[in-house]
Amino acid sequence: MQLLRWRRDVRHFDRRAVGEADMRALLACASLAPSVGNAQPWRFVRVRTPDIREALAAHADGQSAQAAERYAGQARHDHYLSLKLHGLREAPELMAVFCDELPEAGHGLGIATMPEMLRYSCVLAIHNLWLAARLRGIGLGWVSIVDPPLVQAMLDVPAHWSLIALLCIGYPADTSDTPELERHGWQPREPWSDRVFER
Amino acid sequence: MQLLRWRRDVRHFDRRAVGEADMRALLACASLAPSVGNAQPWRFVRVRTPDIREALAAHADGQSAQAAERYAGQARHDHYLSLKLHGLREAPELMAVFCDELPEAGHGLGIATMPEMLRYSCVLAIHNLWLAARLRGIGLGWVSIVDPPLVQAMLDVPAHWSLIALLCIGYPADTSDTPELERHGWQPREPWSDRVFER
Repeated sequence: MQLLRWRRDVRHFDRRAVGEADMRALLACASLAPSVGNAQPWRFVRVRTPDIREALAAHADGQSAQAAERYAGQARHDHYLSLKLHGLREAPELMAVFCDELPEAGHGLGIATMPEMLRYSCVLAIHNLWLAARLRGIGLGWVSIVDPPLVQAMLDVPAHWSLIALLCIGYPADTSDTPELERHGWQPREPWSDRVFER
Repeated sequence: MQLLRWRRDVRHFDRRAVGEADMRALLACASLAPSVGNAQPWRFVRVRTPDIREALAAHADGQSAQAAERYAGQARHDHYLSLKLHGLREAPELMAVFCDELPEAGHGLGIATMPEMLRYSCVLAIHNLWLAARLRGIGLGWVSIVDPPLVQAMLDVPAHWSLIALLCIGYPADTSDTPELERHGWQPREPWSDRVFER
Protein backbone atom coordinates (compact mmCIF):
# COMPACT_ATOMS: atom_id res chain seq x y z
CA MET A 1 0.00 0.00 0.00
CA GLN A 2 2.82 2.39 0.86
CA LEU A 3 4.63 1.25 -2.24
CA LEU A 4 1.57 2.01 -4.36
CA ARG A 5 1.20 5.40 -2.71
CA TRP A 6 4.84 6.37 -3.16
CA ARG A 7 5.08 5.29 -6.76
CA ARG A 8 5.44 8.42 -8.89
CA ASP A 9 5.83 9.31 -12.52
CA VAL A 10 9.22 11.00 -12.60
CA ARG A 11 10.31 13.72 -14.98
CA HIS A 12 13.28 15.17 -13.05
CA PHE A 13 16.26 12.83 -12.89
CA ASP A 14 19.73 13.27 -11.51
CA ARG A 15 22.56 11.95 -13.65
CA ARG A 16 23.63 9.09 -11.38
CA ALA A 17 23.83 5.89 -13.43
CA VAL A 18 21.56 2.94 -12.71
CA GLY A 19 23.68 -0.18 -12.13
CA GLU A 20 23.47 -2.95 -14.67
CA ALA A 21 22.52 -5.45 -11.94
CA ASP A 22 19.57 -3.23 -11.04
CA MET A 23 18.51 -2.96 -14.67
CA ARG A 24 18.59 -6.73 -15.00
CA ALA A 25 16.57 -7.12 -11.82
CA LEU A 26 13.96 -4.67 -13.10
CA LEU A 27 13.67 -6.53 -16.39
CA ALA A 28 13.36 -9.85 -14.58
CA CYS A 29 10.58 -8.46 -12.37
CA ALA A 30 8.80 -7.03 -15.39
CA SER A 31 8.89 -10.43 -17.01
CA LEU A 32 7.08 -11.98 -14.03
CA ALA A 33 3.93 -10.12 -15.08
CA PRO A 34 0.80 -12.05 -15.95
CA SER A 35 0.09 -12.28 -19.66
CA VAL A 36 -2.80 -13.57 -21.67
CA GLY A 37 -2.26 -17.23 -22.52
CA ASN A 38 1.21 -16.75 -21.02
CA ALA A 39 2.11 -15.08 -24.33
CA GLN A 40 4.76 -12.82 -22.74
CA PRO A 41 4.34 -10.36 -25.63
CA TRP A 42 6.56 -7.63 -24.12
CA ARG A 43 9.68 -6.55 -26.03
CA PHE A 44 12.10 -4.19 -24.27
CA VAL A 45 14.35 -2.01 -26.38
CA ARG A 46 17.12 -0.26 -24.47
CA VAL A 47 18.24 2.93 -26.18
CA ARG A 48 22.04 3.12 -26.10
CA THR A 49 22.78 5.42 -29.05
CA PRO A 50 23.03 9.14 -28.21
CA ASP A 51 21.70 10.17 -31.63
CA ILE A 52 18.59 8.04 -31.22
CA ARG A 53 18.01 9.45 -27.74
CA GLU A 54 18.24 13.01 -29.03
CA ALA A 55 15.91 12.21 -31.93
CA LEU A 56 13.34 10.82 -29.49
CA ALA A 57 13.63 13.86 -27.20
CA ALA A 58 13.29 16.28 -30.13
CA HIS A 59 10.27 14.35 -31.37
CA ALA A 60 8.59 14.51 -27.94
CA ASP A 61 9.28 18.24 -27.75
CA GLY A 62 7.63 18.71 -31.13
CA GLN A 63 4.58 16.65 -30.22
CA SER A 64 4.30 18.52 -26.95
CA ALA A 65 4.34 21.88 -28.77
CA GLN A 66 1.54 20.61 -31.03
CA ALA A 67 -0.47 19.40 -28.04
CA ALA A 68 -0.07 22.85 -26.44
CA GLU A 69 -1.94 24.33 -29.39
CA ARG A 70 -5.01 22.34 -28.33
CA TYR A 71 -5.16 24.56 -25.26
CA ALA A 72 -4.73 27.80 -27.23
CA GLY A 73 -6.83 30.61 -25.84
CA GLN A 74 -7.41 28.77 -22.59
CA ALA A 75 -5.80 29.52 -19.24
CA ARG A 76 -4.44 25.98 -19.43
CA HIS A 77 -2.19 26.86 -22.37
CA ASP A 78 0.52 28.54 -20.28
CA HIS A 79 -0.02 26.01 -17.53
CA TYR A 80 0.63 23.16 -19.99
CA LEU A 81 3.77 24.83 -21.31
CA SER A 82 5.08 25.28 -17.78
CA LEU A 83 4.92 21.55 -17.02
CA LYS A 84 7.98 19.38 -17.49
CA LEU A 85 6.61 16.46 -19.47
CA HIS A 86 9.62 14.22 -20.00
CA GLY A 87 13.13 13.48 -18.90
CA LEU A 88 14.28 11.92 -22.17
CA ARG A 89 17.54 13.90 -22.25
CA GLU A 90 18.64 13.47 -18.64
CA ALA A 91 17.44 10.02 -17.59
CA PRO A 92 20.43 7.68 -17.47
CA GLU A 93 18.40 4.82 -18.96
CA LEU A 94 15.90 5.04 -21.77
CA MET A 95 13.80 2.07 -22.75
CA ALA A 96 10.93 1.58 -25.17
CA VAL A 97 8.42 -1.18 -24.54
CA PHE A 98 6.69 -2.76 -27.50
CA CYS A 99 3.95 -5.34 -27.81
CA ASP A 100 4.50 -8.17 -30.27
CA GLU A 101 1.04 -8.38 -31.82
CA LEU A 102 1.83 -11.79 -33.37
CA PRO A 103 3.63 -13.61 -30.57
CA GLU A 104 4.60 -17.23 -31.03
CA ALA A 105 3.96 -17.88 -27.34
CA GLY A 106 0.45 -18.29 -25.89
CA HIS A 107 -1.14 -20.02 -28.88
CA GLY A 108 -3.81 -17.32 -29.18
CA LEU A 109 -5.51 -18.14 -25.88
CA GLY A 110 -7.76 -15.33 -24.63
CA ILE A 111 -7.27 -12.95 -27.55
CA ALA A 112 -9.99 -14.02 -29.99
CA THR A 113 -12.43 -11.33 -28.82
CA MET A 114 -10.00 -9.02 -27.00
CA PRO A 115 -6.72 -8.86 -28.96
CA GLU A 116 -5.86 -5.78 -26.90
CA MET A 117 -5.13 -8.21 -24.03
CA LEU A 118 -1.63 -8.55 -25.51
CA ARG A 119 -1.07 -4.83 -25.08
CA TYR A 120 -2.58 -4.90 -21.59
CA SER A 121 -0.15 -7.69 -20.66
CA CYS A 122 2.71 -5.36 -21.62
CA VAL A 123 1.24 -2.65 -19.40
CA LEU A 124 1.24 -5.11 -16.49
CA ALA A 125 4.93 -5.82 -17.15
CA ILE A 126 5.67 -2.09 -17.09
CA HIS A 127 3.87 -1.74 -13.77
CA ASN A 128 5.93 -4.59 -12.31
CA LEU A 129 9.06 -2.82 -13.48
CA TRP A 130 7.81 0.46 -12.03
CA LEU A 131 7.15 -1.01 -8.59
CA ALA A 132 10.41 -2.96 -8.58
CA ALA A 133 12.22 0.27 -9.47
CA ARG A 134 10.51 2.19 -6.69
CA LEU A 135 11.55 -0.45 -4.14
CA ARG A 136 15.16 0.34 -5.12
CA GLY A 137 14.68 4.13 -5.00
CA ILE A 138 14.76 4.27 -8.80
CA GLY A 139 12.22 6.43 -10.59
CA LEU A 140 10.32 5.84 -13.81
CA GLY A 141 8.71 8.31 -16.17
CA TRP A 142 6.26 7.14 -18.83
CA VAL A 143 6.29 9.43 -21.86
CA SER A 144 3.18 9.24 -24.04
CA ILE A 145 3.55 12.47 -25.99
CA VAL A 146 5.02 10.69 -29.01
CA ASP A 147 3.66 9.31 -32.25
CA PRO A 148 3.92 5.50 -32.00
CA PRO A 149 4.68 4.71 -35.68
CA LEU A 150 7.46 7.30 -35.75
CA VAL A 151 9.05 5.83 -32.62
CA GLN A 152 8.78 2.37 -34.15
CA ALA A 153 10.61 3.65 -37.21
CA MET A 154 13.30 5.44 -35.18
CA LEU A 155 14.01 2.26 -33.25
CA ASP A 156 13.83 0.02 -36.33
CA VAL A 157 11.61 -2.69 -34.85
CA PRO A 158 9.38 -5.17 -36.73
CA ALA A 159 6.16 -3.79 -38.15
CA HIS A 160 4.02 -6.04 -35.94
CA TRP A 161 5.45 -4.56 -32.76
CA SER A 162 3.34 -1.69 -31.42
CA LEU A 163 4.67 0.93 -29.04
CA ILE A 164 3.27 0.73 -25.53
CA ALA A 165 5.60 3.08 -23.67
CA LEU A 166 8.73 5.12 -23.81
CA LEU A 167 10.28 4.95 -20.34
CA CYS A 168 12.81 7.18 -18.62
CA ILE A 169 14.58 5.38 -15.77
CA GLY A 170 16.90 6.86 -13.18
CA TYR A 171 17.21 8.32 -9.70
CA PRO A 172 14.62 11.04 -9.12
CA ALA A 173 15.90 14.53 -8.43
CA ASP A 174 12.65 15.27 -6.64
CA THR A 175 11.28 13.00 -3.95
CA SER A 176 7.88 14.50 -3.20
CA ASP A 177 5.21 11.89 -2.71
CA THR A 178 2.52 14.10 -4.24
CA PRO A 179 2.16 13.66 -8.00
CA GLU A 180 3.68 16.52 -9.92
CA LEU A 181 0.47 17.19 -11.84
CA GLU A 182 -1.35 17.47 -8.51
CA ARG A 183 1.28 19.73 -6.94
CA HIS A 184 1.17 22.01 -9.94
CA GLY A 185 -2.61 22.24 -9.93
CA TRP A 186 -3.24 20.41 -13.21
CA GLN A 187 -5.59 17.77 -11.84
CA PRO A 188 -6.05 16.53 -8.26
CA ARG A 189 -6.81 12.96 -7.32
CA GLU A 190 -10.55 12.52 -6.82
CA PRO A 191 -12.39 10.27 -4.32
CA TRP A 192 -12.18 6.66 -5.44
CA SER A 193 -15.77 5.99 -4.42
CA ASP A 194 -16.97 8.30 -7.22
CA ARG A 195 -15.72 5.64 -9.63
CA VAL A 196 -17.55 2.62 -8.22
CA PHE A 197 -20.98 1.54 -9.46
CA GLU A 198 -23.30 -1.43 -8.94
CA ARG A 199 -25.45 -3.46 -11.26
CA MET B 1 9.61 -9.55 -5.85
CA GLN B 2 7.99 -12.42 -3.97
CA LEU B 3 4.66 -10.69 -4.32
CA LEU B 4 5.15 -10.43 -8.08
CA ARG B 5 6.18 -14.06 -8.28
CA TRP B 6 3.23 -15.32 -6.23
CA ARG B 7 0.62 -13.29 -8.03
CA ARG B 8 -1.56 -15.69 -10.02
CA ASP B 9 -4.52 -15.57 -12.33
CA VAL B 10 -7.12 -17.57 -10.42
CA ARG B 11 -9.93 -19.61 -11.95
CA HIS B 12 -10.76 -21.92 -9.00
CA PHE B 13 -12.41 -20.11 -6.11
CA ASP B 14 -13.86 -21.36 -2.86
CA ARG B 15 -17.17 -19.85 -1.83
CA ARG B 16 -15.92 -17.91 1.19
CA ALA B 17 -17.13 -14.31 0.96
CA VAL B 18 -14.70 -11.42 0.64
CA GLY B 19 -15.33 -8.90 3.41
CA GLU B 20 -16.66 -5.51 2.44
CA ALA B 21 -13.74 -3.79 4.22
CA ASP B 22 -11.35 -5.79 2.04
CA MET B 23 -13.26 -4.87 -1.11
CA ARG B 24 -13.08 -1.20 -0.19
CA ALA B 25 -9.36 -1.50 0.51
CA LEU B 26 -8.80 -3.13 -2.88
CA LEU B 27 -10.72 -0.39 -4.65
CA ALA B 28 -8.80 2.28 -2.76
CA CYS B 29 -5.48 0.68 -3.75
CA ALA B 30 -6.59 0.40 -7.37
CA SER B 31 -7.38 4.09 -7.36
CA LEU B 32 -3.82 4.94 -6.32
CA ALA B 33 -2.65 3.86 -9.76
CA PRO B 34 -0.88 6.33 -12.00
CA SER B 35 -3.02 7.69 -14.81
CA VAL B 36 -2.31 9.84 -17.80
CA GLY B 37 -2.82 13.52 -16.92
CA ASN B 38 -4.19 12.20 -13.59
CA ALA B 39 -7.39 11.45 -15.55
CA GLN B 40 -8.35 8.52 -13.29
CA PRO B 41 -10.45 7.04 -16.13
CA TRP B 42 -11.23 3.74 -14.35
CA ARG B 43 -14.86 2.87 -13.65
CA PHE B 44 -15.57 -0.17 -11.46
CA VAL B 45 -18.91 -1.92 -11.82
CA ARG B 46 -19.65 -4.48 -9.11
CA VAL B 47 -22.05 -7.14 -10.32
CA ARG B 48 -24.63 -7.83 -7.60
CA THR B 49 -27.53 -9.26 -9.59
CA PRO B 50 -27.56 -13.08 -9.95
CA ASP B 51 -29.24 -12.92 -13.37
CA ILE B 52 -26.54 -10.62 -14.74
CA ARG B 53 -23.83 -12.86 -13.34
CA GLU B 54 -25.34 -15.91 -15.01
CA ALA B 55 -25.73 -14.04 -18.30
CA LEU B 56 -22.03 -13.09 -18.18
CA ALA B 57 -20.99 -16.66 -17.38
CA ALA B 58 -23.14 -18.10 -20.18
CA HIS B 59 -21.72 -15.52 -22.59
CA ALA B 60 -18.13 -16.44 -21.64
CA ASP B 61 -18.93 -20.14 -22.10
CA GLY B 62 -20.29 -19.41 -25.57
CA GLN B 63 -17.27 -17.32 -26.58
CA SER B 64 -14.97 -20.00 -25.23
CA ALA B 65 -16.71 -22.68 -27.32
CA GLN B 66 -16.26 -20.50 -30.40
CA ALA B 67 -12.59 -19.96 -29.58
CA ALA B 68 -12.15 -23.73 -29.25
CA GLU B 69 -13.17 -24.08 -32.90
CA ARG B 70 -10.06 -22.12 -33.88
CA TYR B 71 -8.02 -25.07 -32.63
CA ALA B 72 -10.13 -27.66 -34.50
CA GLY B 73 -8.04 -30.48 -35.91
CA GLN B 74 -5.09 -29.57 -33.73
CA ALA B 75 -3.88 -31.43 -30.66
CA ARG B 76 -4.52 -28.16 -28.82
CA HIS B 77 -8.27 -28.45 -29.33
CA ASP B 78 -8.85 -30.98 -26.54
CA HIS B 79 -6.19 -29.28 -24.46
CA TYR B 80 -8.04 -25.96 -24.73
CA LEU B 81 -11.36 -27.57 -23.82
CA SER B 82 -9.77 -29.17 -20.75
CA LEU B 83 -8.67 -25.81 -19.33
CA LYS B 84 -10.83 -23.99 -16.82
CA LEU B 85 -10.94 -20.47 -18.23
CA HIS B 86 -13.10 -18.57 -15.79
CA GLY B 87 -14.65 -18.63 -12.34
CA LEU B 88 -17.58 -16.35 -13.14
CA ARG B 89 -20.13 -18.62 -11.45
CA GLU B 90 -18.24 -19.38 -8.24
CA ALA B 91 -16.25 -16.26 -7.44
CA PRO B 92 -17.91 -14.42 -4.55
CA GLU B 93 -17.22 -11.04 -6.15
CA LEU B 94 -17.54 -10.13 -9.80
CA MET B 95 -16.43 -6.77 -11.08
CA ALA B 96 -16.14 -5.25 -14.52
CA VAL B 97 -13.60 -2.49 -15.13
CA PHE B 98 -14.33 0.07 -17.81
CA CYS B 99 -12.36 2.95 -19.23
CA ASP B 100 -14.14 6.27 -19.58
CA GLU B 101 -12.84 7.34 -22.99
CA LEU B 102 -14.06 10.92 -22.44
CA PRO B 103 -13.07 11.64 -18.85
CA GLU B 104 -13.62 15.09 -17.42
CA ALA B 105 -10.46 14.73 -15.36
CA GLY B 106 -6.98 15.14 -16.81
CA HIS B 107 -7.81 17.82 -19.38
CA GLY B 108 -6.54 15.70 -22.24
CA LEU B 109 -2.90 15.75 -21.12
CA GLY B 110 -0.80 13.01 -22.74
CA ILE B 111 -3.52 11.50 -24.92
CA ALA B 112 -3.27 13.56 -28.12
CA THR B 113 -1.09 10.98 -29.88
CA MET B 114 -1.75 7.96 -27.66
CA PRO B 115 -5.42 7.96 -26.59
CA GLU B 116 -4.92 4.34 -25.53
CA MET B 117 -3.06 5.73 -22.49
CA LEU B 118 -6.47 6.04 -20.84
CA ARG B 119 -7.02 2.31 -21.23
CA TYR B 120 -3.49 1.57 -20.06
CA SER B 121 -4.14 3.65 -16.94
CA CYS B 122 -7.08 1.36 -16.17
CA VAL B 123 -4.83 -1.68 -16.58
CA LEU B 124 -2.43 -0.16 -14.02
CA ALA B 125 -5.35 0.24 -11.60
CA ILE B 126 -6.28 -3.41 -12.09
CA HIS B 127 -2.71 -4.46 -11.37
CA ASN B 128 -2.72 -2.43 -8.15
CA LEU B 129 -5.94 -4.17 -7.16
CA TRP B 130 -4.45 -7.55 -8.07
CA LEU B 131 -1.35 -7.05 -5.93
CA ALA B 132 -3.35 -5.61 -3.02
CA ALA B 133 -5.63 -8.64 -3.21
CA ARG B 134 -2.71 -11.06 -3.22
CA LEU B 135 -1.27 -9.40 -0.09
CA ARG B 136 -4.55 -10.32 1.62
CA GLY B 137 -4.59 -13.89 0.28
CA ILE B 138 -7.38 -12.95 -2.13
CA GLY B 139 -7.20 -14.18 -5.71
CA LEU B 140 -8.12 -12.47 -8.93
CA GLY B 141 -9.00 -13.93 -12.30
CA TRP B 142 -9.09 -11.76 -15.42
CA VAL B 143 -11.57 -13.07 -17.98
CA SER B 144 -10.96 -11.88 -21.55
CA ILE B 145 -13.03 -14.45 -23.45
CA VAL B 146 -15.97 -12.06 -23.81
CA ASP B 147 -17.19 -9.67 -26.46
CA PRO B 148 -16.70 -6.16 -25.02
CA PRO B 149 -19.75 -4.44 -26.59
CA LEU B 150 -22.03 -7.23 -25.37
CA VAL B 151 -20.71 -6.92 -21.83
CA GLN B 152 -21.18 -3.16 -22.01
CA ALA B 153 -24.81 -3.74 -23.01
CA MET B 154 -25.41 -6.35 -20.30
CA LEU B 155 -24.12 -3.96 -17.66
CA ASP B 156 -25.91 -0.94 -19.11
CA VAL B 157 -23.00 1.48 -18.99
CA PRO B 158 -22.50 4.65 -21.06
CA ALA B 159 -21.47 4.15 -24.69
CA HIS B 160 -18.14 5.93 -24.16
CA TRP B 161 -17.03 3.43 -21.53
CA SER B 162 -14.98 0.59 -23.00
CA LEU B 163 -14.52 -2.74 -21.28
CA ILE B 164 -11.02 -3.38 -20.00
CA ALA B 165 -11.59 -6.43 -17.81
CA LEU B 166 -14.10 -8.73 -16.24
CA LEU B 167 -12.66 -9.74 -12.88
CA CYS B 168 -13.44 -12.67 -10.59
CA ILE B 169 -12.39 -12.00 -7.00
CA GLY B 170 -12.32 -14.43 -4.10
CA TYR B 171 -10.22 -16.85 -2.10
CA PRO B 172 -8.36 -19.28 -4.36
CA ALA B 173 -9.18 -22.96 -4.00
CA ASP B 174 -5.76 -23.76 -5.40
CA THR B 175 -2.60 -22.20 -4.02
CA SER B 176 0.08 -23.43 -6.39
CA ASP B 177 2.58 -20.75 -7.25
CA THR B 178 3.07 -22.08 -10.77
CA PRO B 179 0.70 -20.54 -13.31
CA GLU B 180 -2.10 -22.89 -14.26
CA LEU B 181 -1.35 -22.57 -17.98
CA GLU B 182 2.25 -23.57 -17.25
CA ARG B 183 1.29 -26.49 -15.00
CA HIS B 184 -1.06 -27.80 -17.65
CA GLY B 185 1.52 -27.53 -20.41
CA TRP B 186 -0.18 -24.77 -22.43
CA GLN B 187 2.75 -22.37 -22.48
CA PRO B 188 5.78 -22.15 -20.18
CA ARG B 189 7.42 -18.93 -19.11
CA GLU B 190 10.39 -18.20 -21.34
CA PRO B 191 13.73 -16.54 -20.42
CA TRP B 192 13.23 -12.82 -19.95
CA SER B 193 16.51 -12.03 -21.66
CA ASP B 194 15.04 -13.27 -24.97
CA ARG B 195 12.79 -10.21 -24.87
CA VAL B 196 15.43 -7.51 -24.40
CA PHE B 197 17.03 -5.71 -27.35
CA GLU B 198 19.36 -2.75 -27.84
CA ARG B 199 19.43 0.11 -30.28
